Amino acid sequence: MMNSLPLAAAALLLASVAAQAQTMQVSPNGARASIAGSAETFTGTVTVTPLFTASEHSNAGGGLVEFTPGARSHWHTHPAGQTLIVTAGTGWVQEVGGEKVAIRPGDVVWTPPGVKHWHGATAESSMSHIAITPVHDGSAVTWLEPVTDEQYR
Amino acid sequence: MMNSLPLAAAALLLASVAAQAQTMQVSPNGARASIAGSAETFTGTVTVTPLFTASEHSNAGGGLVEFTPGARSHWHTHPAGQTLIVTAGTGWVQEVGGEKVAIRPGDVVWTPPGVKHWHGATAESSMSHIAITPVHDGSAVTWLEPVTDEQYR
Repeated sequence: MMNSLPLAAAALLLASVAAQAQTMQVSPNGARASIAGSAETFTGTVTVTPLFTASEHSNAGGGLVEFTPGARSHWHTHPAGQTLIVTAGTGWVQEVGGEKVAIRPGDVVWTPPGVKHWHGATAESSMSHIAITPVHDGSAVTWLEPVTDEQYR
Repeated sequence: MMNSLPLAAAALLLASVAAQAQTMQVSPNGARASIAGSAETFTGTVTVTPLFTASEHSNAGGGLVEFTPGARSHWHTHPAGQTLIVTAGTGWVQEVGGEKVAIRPGDVVWTPPGVKHWHGATAESSMSHIAITPVHDGSAVTWLEPVTDEQYR
C-alpha cells in the first residue's frame, strides 16, 4: 500500500533535513514512500517517488514518475520549466498545438517555462521518467484540464 | 569510438542553445556524445554522457556516469554539493574520515558543499549513476588526488 499524503510530506521533510546535514547522506531506495498520482492531476495509474528536494544549493527538486499504459498527466505548465530523463518504456509528450512525440529511455526532454503540455505512457506501453523541476516563487507546476481520450489517441 | 573533447563541448553548446528555445525539446538518446573520463580525474574506465546543462532557469547540470568494476573518481569536492541517483549496479561512496558505503539502484546520495569524497563501482560490479551538480561561480567540482588501491579496497 502507498502511504497517505501526510506521511509523504513527512518523508519529504526528512529528506529536506538530511539535505542540510554536513556529511554525505545516502537515502536508500525504499526510504522515500511512493505516492499515487492524484486523479486531479493525472489520468490513469501514476506513481510518484520523491528523489530529492530543492534546497539552498539548487533550486530544482527531482522525482521518479511511473505511468502505466494509457496513463498521462493533465495539461500543465511549469513556471521555471522542467527536464525529463526517460528511464524505462515508451511514452508520449505533446505541446499545445504540436504533434505527439515518442520518448524512449535515455531521451531528455526540456519544457520551457509557461509552455502548456502533457506527458505520459503510450496507449500500449508503460513509461517512467525522472522529472527535475526548478521551483519559482514556491511553485513547480500549474495544473490545467485533463487530456481527453480524443487528444490522447 | 567516443568523440574528442572539442566535439563534446560543441554538443554541450547545442544542448545549451536548445534549452533556451521556447518550445519543447526532445534530445534523443545518442545525440549527446559520451566522453571517456579523464585519467586526471578518474581511475579505471569511466564513461560520462551529458544529459542537460545548467541554465538561466536552474543552476544544476546533469550527466550519466558509468563506472566499470574497480573504476572510481579521484577524491574531490563540489562547491555547491551534488546529488547522485544510482541507476544500475553496485557502487561505493566514501567521505574522508568515514567508511565506504554501498549504493544500489534507486538510492540517492547527497554530498554537501566542500565535503571531500569519492564515488565509483565496487571491485566486482559496475555501477552507473545520474549526477546532478549545481554550479557555483562557474565551478561544479574541485578535483584532488587519486583514490589509492589501499584506500579503495
